Amino acid sequence: MEEWLIMAYPSDRTALVVVDATNDFISEGGKAWPGVRDVLAEVGTVATMKRVLDAARAAGIQVLHAPMETQPWDYGPWKHRTPSHDGMFAAQLFRAGTWGAEFHPDFVPAEGEVVATPHKTFNAFHGTDLDTQLRQRDLDHLILCGLTTNTCVDSTGRDAVERGYHVTFVSDAVATFTMEMQQATIEQNWPRYAHRILTGAELVTELG
Amino acid sequence: MEEWLIMAYPSDRTALVVVDATNDFISEGGKAWPGVRDVLAEVGTVATMKRVLDAARAAGIQVLHAPMETQPWDYGPWKHRTPSHDGMFAAQLFRAGTWGAEFHPDFVPAEGEVVATPHKTFNAFHGTDLDTQLRQRDLDHLILCGLTTNTCVDSTGRDAVERGYHVTFVSDAVATFTMEMQQATIEQNWPRYAHRILTGAELVTELG
Amino acid sequence: MEEWLIMAYPSDRTALVVVDATNDFISEGGKAWPGVRDVLAEVGTVATMKRVLDAARAAGIQVLHAPMETQPWDYGPWKHRTPSHDGMFAAQLFRAGTWGAEFHPDFVPAEGEVVATPHKTFNAFHGTDLDTQLRQRDLDHLILCGLTTNTCVDSTGRDAVERGYHVTFVSDAVATFTMEMQQATIEQNWPRYAHRILTGAELVTELG
Amino acid sequence: MEEWLIMAYPSDRTALVVVDATNDFISEGGKAWPGVRDVLAEVGTVATMKRVLDAARAAGIQVLHAPMETQPWDYGPWKHRTPSHDGMFAAQLFRAGTWGAEFHPDFVPAEGEVVATPHKTFNAFHGTDLDTQLRQRDLDHLILCGLTTNTCVDSTGRDAVERGYHVTFVSDAVATFTMEMQQATIEQNWPRYAHRILTGAELVTELG
Repeated sequence: MEEWLIMAYPSDRTALVVVDATNDFISEGGKAWPGVRDVLAEVGTVATMKRVLDAARAAGIQVLHAPMETQPWDYGPWKHRTPSHDGMFAAQLFRAGTWGAEFHPDFVPAEGEVVATPHKTFNAFHGTDLDTQLRQRDLDHLILCGLTTNTCVDSTGRDAVERGYHVTFVSDAVATFTMEMQQATIEQNWPRYAHRILTGAELVTELG
Repeated sequence: MEEWLIMAYPSDRTALVVVDATNDFISEGGKAWPGVRDVLAEVGTVATMKRVLDAARAAGIQVLHAPMETQPWDYGPWKHRTPSHDGMFAAQLFRAGTWGAEFHPDFVPAEGEVVATPHKTFNAFHGTDLDTQLRQRDLDHLILCGLTTNTCVDSTGRDAVERGYHVTFVSDAVATFTMEMQQATIEQNWPRYAHRILTGAELVTELG
Repeated sequence: MEEWLIMAYPSDRTALVVVDATNDFISEGGKAWPGVRDVLAEVGTVATMKRVLDAARAAGIQVLHAPMETQPWDYGPWKHRTPSHDGMFAAQLFRAGTWGAEFHPDFVPAEGEVVATPHKTFNAFHGTDLDTQLRQRDLDHLILCGLTTNTCVDSTGRDAVERGYHVTFVSDAVATFTMEMQQATIEQNWPRYAHRILTGAELVTELG
Repeated sequence: MEEWLIMAYPSDRTALVVVDATNDFISEGGKAWPGVRDVLAEVGTVATMKRVLDAARAAGIQVLHAPMETQPWDYGPWKHRTPSHDGMFAAQLFRAGTWGAEFHPDFVPAEGEVVATPHKTFNAFHGTDLDTQLRQRDLDHLILCGLTTNTCVDSTGRDAVERGYHVTFVSDAVATFTMEMQQATIEQNWPRYAHRILTGAELVTELG
């Protein structure tokens, strides 16, 4: 059996990174919530994210929060906006200072937890201090959950692999706009580069 | 109509980036070729890549080649190899100095074209001079083709978007291990962040 | 004559980046101000920075502000703090929410100007969105001023060169802890990699 | 006493990075050698570099070589060349395939040692796989030596600090064009951000 299949999560080198657990995405009334509510409900994403967060805290694993947050100078003047940038700009998603950019009540950072500087596209490492905060704590195993599966979570996980991290995706603690998108990423892509793909229940058992 | 839908490709700011067009992937007898041969055949990938390359050259668009190439010190001693790293290491894929790491005869760089320093995982920007070579030539529109659709091509395109490039994927000038993987990326993911998704024929018409 | 010696600053591709113009550094009463006050006075740094800022605004050049700002989770738990990190941590420099982290009154961002996400060590590109904000506005000429000459300003300028920008340092719109440090950077280092080194007066004349 | 003052170099987490130990710089007859020969002689740089390399090998510390190497497509077509780029381009320094780009005989990589992909400006991390090779071996303490003190060595060390490494400069295993430049960096800059500054003799004693 491959070493990575039986590897545990050393508590002093493991981090849980919660991606985009803000009101605009996962709270009823959030601006992007209508787009993901069906998958959130079918997968049970938010409750699983919370169980994973509780288990990480109980196990003494460092928690980092990686939210989007946008400013008046973002997107509008950019020369090469993507369809996602256009959508975020039009709806003023995750606008700093609004309720939508605040953390969902279940995912408010606790003392000692890190809030990475906000990412502006998908990858929570790009243009943020996430890597610095992880490296300066000697953390090299990442457990990833949050939204959306095929954009921010996947781009963050892909870059984590490039940066030499051990990467675990929690397959029912993520969500996106359709179940077809959800499955495409989990089934077709993650087995190519994830070190591990676990359900929340499997992960909680391991951390317990 | 959105501006990006009608945008042309300014020849002095556009680059064609050919990803991993080496013998181990796209030449009969290449070590990884058996894994992708069916999709290559069904899609007609190699012939389309060649048509796109010819059209770019005819249009005076800068061509950059972004190959993998591995050294004796890669992968083996790494602490967090992915399944893909394991596969590349076991098979000694793209090993520097071997035929497998050489360019397929149709994709040998011409004079004035750039060969980026090799990437070691998926993203042709990560740990390479690709970004420097593009920026120093003031190129900000990228046309991407090559292998594999959901790993190197997609990771490169995702990072290009993060870095502020305008990104076009050529949907029949890419290939991967199964058609299901191929479709998952093209249909479920690229519409979220690509600026444009064109067939080779559509692109050649625009460049012509 | 070399092209770079006679090059003007195209207003649609030039940016002024003001580094660390916050109260803790350049306002009387700031925590780090006693360390730099003598050089600020001898060089006339703050007044020159203001003249440069005014000239950039008048010329329609994009202004970006690149401040430090620190959070409770910075530095303390880090494994490899430098002497500078130790100093910032001990004095709680640039702590978010305090007066010290606010901009000096002369350098408050105007509408349409960008405030980059904060850097945590020296380089205003590292772990921030500065590069994204510049690239997405097609800006590739940087004019740099601020503090300190040999740490944040120089590290930012060095990385700008690596990233392919045209870099101008304004030699009397910078300051550091001693005149010896100041001269070491301006005379011994910048001529190796700066595209241009101008006084504020020279720059204002060119922009005018 | 500060922890970092008494910290040893754990052999499984420490790396020696030798910067630009190629013929064009440090061998008689190299194209850039006339510019640095006086400082090399006064400091005794090459002999000290060799003693440090021998000590690292004897102590079982991972050695990485970080050379420059340039291709026909470098510098010439770049829009923002620095004075250093101009010099390298005009003299065809470190041109791939020439003797000048080969390692000086004392610094030929041994089996198991890493040769990072070449850097093109100063920073041996920028656009190279150096960070990946270090992280994937869990190495987080860097010992730096090579040329030149205030360009490649300093830019590499500055970026190493940003990336969270513990950084040691070996003050007599480096050289540059004048002793004034040499001293400016060692005395004015490194004490701001180096974790340690040691002579070769001090380092060899510690590793012994």
